[in-house]
Formats: sequence, C-alpha cells, structure tokens
Amino acid sequence: MYIHGDMIIGRQSVRGAAGVVHAVDPARHATLEPAFGLASGAELAAACALAEQAFDSYRALPLERRAAFLEAIAARILDIGPALIERAGLESGLPQLRLEGERMRTVNQLRLFAKVVRDGHFLGAALDSALPERTPPRPDLRLRKIPLGPVAVFGASNFPLAFSVAGGDTASALAAGCPVVVKAHNAHLGTSELVARAVQQAAIDCDMPEGVFSMLIGEGRTIGAELVAHPAIKAVGFTGSRQGGLSLMRIAAGRPEPIPVYAEMSSINPFFLLPGALEGGAAKLGQGFVDSLTLGVGQFCTNPGLVIGLEGEALNAFSVAAAEALQQKASGTMLTPGIHQAYVEAIERRSAISGLQLLARGAAADSEGPACAAQPALYGCDAATFLATPALEEEIFGPAAVMVRCRDEAELLAMAEHVEGQLTATVHATAADNRLAGALLPLLERKAGRILFNGFPTGVEVSHAMVHGGPFPATSDSRTTSVGATAIDRFLRPVCYQAVPAELLPEALRDDNPLGLARVVDGVLKTVG
Amino acid sequence: MYIHGDMIIGRQSVRGAAGVVHAVDPARHATLEPAFGLASGAELAAACALAEQAFDSYRALPLERRAAFLEAIAARILDIGPALIERAGLESGLPQLRLEGERMRTVNQLRLFAKVVRDGHFLGAALDSALPERTPPRPDLRLRKIPLGPVAVFGASNFPLAFSVAGGDTASALAAGCPVVVKAHNAHLGTSELVARAVQQAAIDCDMPEGVFSMLIGEGRTIGAELVAHPAIKAVGFTGSRQGGLSLMRIAAGRPEPIPVYAEMSSINPFFLLPGALEGGAAKLGQGFVDSLTLGVGQFCTNPGLVIGLEGEALNAFSVAAAEALQQKASGTMLTPGIHQAYVEAIERRSAISGLQLLARGAAADSEGPACAAQPALYGCDAATFLATPALEEEIFGPAAVMVRCRDEAELLAMAEHVEGQLTATVHATAADNRLAGALLPLLERKAGRILFNGFPTGVEVSHAMVHGGPFPATSDSRTTSVGATAIDRFLRPVCYQAVPAELLPEALRDDNPLGLARVVDGVLKTVG
Repeated sequence: MYIHGDMIIGRQSVRGAAGVVHAVDPARHATLEPAFGLASGAELAAACALAEQAFDSYRALPLERRAAFLEAIAARILDIGPALIERAGLESGLPQLRLEGERMRTVNQLRLFAKVVRDGHFLGAALDSALPERTPPRPDLRLRKIPLGPVAVFGASNFPLAFSVAGGDTASALAAGCPVVVKAHNAHLGTSELVARAVQQAAIDCDMPEGVFSMLIGEGRTIGAELVAHPAIKAVGFTGSRQGGLSLMRIAAGRPEPIPVYAEMSSINPFFLLPGALEGGAAKLGQGFVDSLTLGVGQFCTNPGLVIGLEGEALNAFSVAAAEALQQKASGTMLTPGIHQAYVEAIERRSAISGLQLLARGAAADSEGPACAAQPALYGCDAATFLATPALEEEIFGPAAVMVRCRDEAELLAMAEHVEGQLTATVHATAADNRLAGALLPLLERKAGRILFNGFPTGVEVSHAMVHGGPFPATSDSRTTSVGATAIDRFLRPVCYQAVPAELLPEALRDDNPLGLARVVDGVLKTVG
Repeated sequence: MYIHGDMIIGRQSVRGAAGVVHAVDPARHATLEPAFGLASGAELAAACALAEQAFDSYRALPLERRAAFLEAIAARILDIGPALIERAGLESGLPQLRLEGERMRTVNQLRLFAKVVRDGHFLGAALDSALPERTPPRPDLRLRKIPLGPVAVFGASNFPLAFSVAGGDTASALAAGCPVVVKAHNAHLGTSELVARAVQQAAIDCDMPEGVFSMLIGEGRTIGAELVAHPAIKAVGFTGSRQGGLSLMRIAAGRPEPIPVYAEMSSINPFFLLPGALEGGAAKLGQGFVDSLTLGVGQFCTNPGLVIGLEGEALNAFSVAAAEALQQKASGTMLTPGIHQAYVEAIERRSAISGLQLLARGAAADSEGPACAAQPALYGCDAATFLATPALEEEIFGPAAVMVRCRDEAELLAMAEHVEGQLTATVHATAADNRLAGALLPLLERKAGRILFNGFPTGVEVSHAMVHGGPFPATSDSRTTSVGATAIDRFLRPVCYQAVPAELLPEALRDDNPLGLARVVDGVLKTVG
C-alpha cells in the first residue's frame, strides 16, 4: 500500500493544505518521505461534522453490524502485510518482532470488542415492571446505555499500532457506537495513514455511514486543542505525557459543555521486594527486573521505575545482580529525537540530585551505533531521601529506575502511602511475606489500577478482568480502564425509557429480549439459556 | 429528639464556633430557634481526617455489615417520628403528606441500597483464568470495583430528606464503601441535625468505624468550597443550582488531584404534545400538565417548564384548558425567602421578553396568606421566538412554564435538537403518532436521561432501571444517575488483581465465590444457582 501523505476524512483522502510535516527515522535521525499535509480548521470541521452526522445512523445499526465492522478493521489491518511492520519500524525504531506482536494485539483487541458488542452485557439492560396497583403506581421503567457521541482519539508514540489509529481507544469507542476522529501522532504518520486507510476500507466494505471514522494530521498543540474544543466531540481518549493530558483536561473542562477526557498519563509503577522473595531469589529478580525495565527501551506506560525494599544483604544482592544485568544492556533507539532528548535531560537532572547514587548504567552506544540511543540507568537512595525529593517521583520516560532502601517495614508502608496514583504496583513475595503483603495490599489498592504479584508490570493482557488505569496522575479518571473489555464503559451513558410503547422500544429492552441479553429484571440479574 | 444547633463529627456533637446561623420558616418569614454554630476550618479538617481514617476499615467490612448499617439508618430515621416531619415542614413550607411520602422514599432508598450491597453485582467481579501454556503466558487476572474514598455530599433545598443528609447521594456513597461528609443545607438545619443524629446513632449501634459519617454546618460558598478542595475528599455529590454546581466543578478540576463531581443542576424538562394525543385529549392533558407544573410549588428538578406542540386548534384547546386550570391554582409557599425572591425576579425578567405572551397566572396570594408565596405562570410563544431567545431556556425554579407553538413537524424536531441537556423529556402520543414519535426518540435520547411517554415527569421512582441524570447542564456527568440502584457506580473504581495469592484475594474474587456473586468468568457472565 502506497503512503500518500493524506488525511482520511470519511470516504475521502484529503491532502492537508496548512503546511507539511515529515515523519522521522529516529535510528538515523533522518527525515522520511513523503511529506504529510497538515489539516486546516476547515478540514477539522469537516471531519467533526461527518462524525456528528454519522452518529445516529451508526448507533442505530444492529449490534451484529457493529461487531462485523470491528472484525473487518482487524482483517484489513492484517491485509496491509509486511509494509505496515516495515514502516512502523522505520518510524519508531521498534524491532520487527515487537511490532508483529503489537499488530496481533491490535487485531485481538478489535476482535475482543466485537465479542463484547455481540454479548451486549455492556448495555447494562435493566427492566422494572409496572406496578399499577401500588400507591403511587409504578410505571414501566427500562434502562439501557447509549453511546456518548463522536470521540476524539489521540494516538500514543510508544504503541504505533495498539494505542494509535485503530488501537484500544478507537476500538472501544466504535464498539460503544461512537464515531471516531483520530489525531494522528506525528511520530508515526506513515503507519497512521496505512491503518487509517484500512479502517476506511472496512467502513466502506461494511457499508458504514460516512464519518464513522476520520483521521486528521496536525500539530498537537493546535489541531488537538481545536478537536477537543469542537462541539461535536463528546469524549476524548488520550495516551501520552502528563503535560499533554492536563492540557486536554483543561480544554475539555472549559468548554461550554464540558466533556470527559480519558487521559492515560504518567506512572512510575512501584515494584516492592518483600524479604521472603529476596531470600534466595535476589539474583534472578535483579535480572528479571532489568529485563522489564529495559524492554522496548523502557518506553512502556507500565515500566517499573521505582524499586522498594528493606535495606540489608538480600536487597544488596538484588542491587548487585540488577547492576550487573544493566551493564550488559545495550543502548536502544528511542521512539523520537524529542523523546531521546527529554530522556538525556531527565538523566542529567537526576544525576544532580543529592543523596542519590548512580548504581549502574547500561552499555554506552558507540559512535557508529544508532542515533537517539538511550543508555539505561539505575539509581539508589534511602527512603528518607526519596520522601523528601518530589523530583524523584517524576516519571522518566525510558529505561531508568530508582531503588529505594527502607529501614523497616513502617518505612516501606510509608513509601506505599506516599506515592502518587499509578497504573500498576508490583509485589514480590512468598507465603512467608503474607503478613506484610496483607498490610501493603489495601494501600496499593488506593494507589493503583492493577496489583500484580511475582511478575513484571510490562505486559498488559487484553481481556475481561484487565485494568489499565489508576488514580490521578496515572490517569485523569480512575473510574475507568483504557485496556480490556470494560474500556467500552467510558463511552456510554444510561437512558431510562418510561412507559415507552412496545413498538418504539429499542431491541435491547423489548419484552421478548430478541438480543438474548443478560438483564436485571426487577432487581434480579437474569441470563438467557 | 431535641435540636441543639450542633454539627456531627464522627461520634461527637460539636458546636461550631465560627458564628451562628438560623433556619427560617418561609411561610412566616420568621427565624427559627435554635441558633446553629458554623464550622471553622479546624472542624472541617477534623471531619475529613476522621473520614480518611475510617475509609480502609469501613470498606473492609463484610458487605452484610454495610447493608445492615444502611437499614439501621432507615430505622433510626423512622424512630424520630413526627418531630422530623414537623421540623421539616416548618423549615421548608412543604405539607405534611408530602414530607411523609419523602421520608418513606428516603427510607426505601436506604433499603434498596442495602439490597444492592448484599447482591454484590455492583462489584463488577470478573475473572480471567491463567493460560500458562499460551505464548506469551496469560497470568491469572481478577477484577473488582472498590470505593473511591471519602465523599462530600451537599444537601438540596427541595428535598430536605430524600436529597439531603441521608438522601440518595449519602446512601449510594455509603453503599459503595465510602465515608460521607455532608454539608448541611442552611434551609433545613434542624431537619439536618435530626437526621444526622439518626445516622450517627446507627453508626454507633452497628459498630461502624468513627468517621464513616459527619455533618458540617457553614456557609456554602466557604465551607463547601473548602470541603471540595480537601485532599481527603475523593468525590462530590451535589443537587442544586447551575451556578453552584459549576462552582464546585471548577474547584474540583483545579485541585492538585482532580476529583469527580456529580452535580445535578438545571433542567426545563421538555414536554411534547403530539397531534394524536391532543386529538380529543387536550383538556385532560392541560389539567394534568398544570397539576404536574404546580406540584410542590414547582420546586422539582423534573418540573415540566417547556411545552412543545404543533400550532392549531388542538393545541389551542390544551392551552385554554391549562390556562383555566392554572387560574385555579393557589400561590404556595416556596422553600426559602431567597428562592421566592429569585422566582419573583425571574418572572419579572420573563415578562419583559418580547414575543412572549402571558397565557395565565395562578391565583394571587392575599395579604393574609403565607409569605414567600409563588404565583404560578404560563407563557406562550412561537418556535421562532424560542429559538432566538436563549433566556427562555433558563430554568425558572418554581411553577412557571412556556408553551411553544411549532408551525410543522420539522420545527418541532428542531426544538428537540435545539434544547440543552435535560433530566427528562416527555412525549404525549398515541399509536397514530408513532412515525413522529419514532423520529423524535433518537433526538431525545441525546438530550435527556429519562424519556417518558404519556405521563408526567414529576415522579422519580427509586428502582433499578431509573435514570435521574442527563447531558450537561442537567448534570455535570451524563454517564451517571443520582437516583436508582446504579447511582452506586458513581463512587467506584476498578482494580485488577494479577496472580495475587489465594489467601490475599478479596472474598469477591476467590475461586469458591463465597459471596455467591454473578461474575464474568473468561468473558461469560455466570450467575449462581
């Protein structure tokens, strides 16, 4: 498939006329062809108007049509073949195997939401029977959830497929019945165009209303802000920096009609090492931790950036093993020159913090190595230093972490109480640690969206029980997840139908339950069959 | 039960030392004894600190304990007996029968949430089995929802029981596992103290952690703002004016850690009269409409303030019948002198709008009648005037409505498209109207939280399928409801437990399902028994 440098606006390919931008190959620090045209306000307005027009007809389609559309998107993405992986690799510096895995995840995500749509449980259907004899009489009441309206999606730099044009936000919004307008991430414009064309083709093949999907290209600060402010847009999905997320939250809250923003922002993912787990397992844990820290050049939202343990020989053994493992890790190409520059500057700032020791660095890139190469770093300090140094809580996007030594259990628990909201919290423990782990667990529940034992946080399963979310500033809205089946709930709102004539009721609420939904009937959950 | 003029802070009665305030009898425009002490910042901090301390122990209690606590609150409220109704009547001007009904609703609300808690469906439990043989292996994943943390609740003036100290916000927050700090409404301070003492007694009887409930007294602009800004508070429930709700939304969004605000604000509740329903039924509809409009002196959130029909003889017949019915309606005492003053001023502003005709007024209060008496008013205009006059969309809190005459169906549908977000939309229609009603329905779904046919909006059932919510500015968050079983969802967030050892798992997620919950297991909803 050829990359034109175009936006996708409904059924059209549109060349933006407000200037040009190029994608960059970070490994060579070189501009990639072609040039992409930037959207003007008129093109943004056209995409939003089409989305608004498409909304009622898209949401009225049978659920089966919606599910088939999601599956068709998955199929069209696979149809692009190796060209997609090649372009994504050029634009992101990510290796082929990782990108192939990410493509499969993207496709599986779309297929999961197709299942979620067919299942219909997300509609939250509930029926309360009329009680005409009661004083006062109770009318017939029926509840279902409907989609919010057109959704703006901002692709993330670090997952050019799974959190981008046809990633989790887009899949869950389309599943909910919301048209989507994507703002492509400028770090992977060619990848974005290829995927957007696949979505467009799927929409045409499935005879979807025009406007169910569009993709704009532009500078984030301008076109992104205009998109969130546009009256047709009713919700926002975003994965990126804290600064970027906060900026969109402010715009959304300042609109004449405020709208929800689902921003996944920053997380340092505390990683607790309890004594039983360190006893005898320190060396293996050190290696495993470093593998997780440096996976994908540390560019995961769930990257473990904060290790917490009780000071002593076992923690020293972990530290030695981690330092040795880290020194073996090569510098890897980061996603963009800008991200690399930010990493270098963050490391410089961190190195100036008093009370912080540099425990190890990864292998330096040689002069003939790739550009934008990040050299991993592991620091250490005591808990008193960490607790007194707010800068240490800032996320460094990349392969850098701090190991915090606590004097005793009380200090370890104080660390858990102290940290900001997180996407994940990891605990390494054995049965011998159950008392301490039991004391830690309620603290971590208040801090993180996912608590994992004896594993590594850098793997986010796409399934029904996953939560990829968490208290602020991990996300803007702790009540939700951006990964997993319940991500669809973000784009829905309930409507009650009171005494609506049978022939006007939505299918989901009819007496004969033609969709075979699980429904709450007079307060009792009833499944079919 | 004696009214002391105190606040309730955990297990203490505390006399606020930052000045005094009195409740007012609006019917006599007279101050009521005793004086109530106003909270200082220290007292606010004490209530919030207790709530924060109570959170983990309260949420960890067995669901049965939480349910029993809600039922004990209901019982203690009933124990107050006639004194509660008398005091609420004095403070609100509302008649005894209405208040007795409201008390029963309040009690039933608490009992409904006790059932919701025991049922456990609100926990959203989901389990994904480990797939150790898969590449990559899938870990064991389990999801449940946990409470957000302490909730600030602002009582409403118009429901001194059902939307106040132990009303729907408090009941649903306590049901979710959140401690509650109420800011009492200054319009019914004595009622608030009586109910707060009942909640306090129930908490003591049920051996709840101290701090699960407190009630503060203070000026809304100061103590309310401080409460929403307090770091211990994690969500806000509010029912009141648009201005008040917007103010709390701004404070909450501007916190270092933004928190959700559930503000139910303003709604004019459009009331559509389709031709089939008017044909032959106009007179009866006119009477019914006026009864709904003037119920409780028009002081319902769901008061029908906007009638929309097709111009012609049938609508004229409705108008004549409504005008005649309205002229029979006496002026009634409003909740507070301030609300009455605002009503009088709103009517004066409305009377100055050009293109608007006064169709009828209710009977004027005579000089020996009650103070603060609102004289009902019905206006009329054509759709063009309404569409060009934003002031006509503002809610008048009280028994006033506008009837809008549309030239044709297109203009009627344009009215539906034009209005802001609403709590309710009503349609009067017969089978002969199905085509027009079918065209109207999707427009109304986008505008309102509840759509009702052939009824009156001023009756909000407390049940499973109720939605008392709607798009902005009806509420601050269209994704939720403040009445009905699913109001509990507002105070919850999901947490995923990955490979957590069986002995540390919460009961809701254990393999043997000791709570007998409906759970989504590997994507399939399973009920027990």
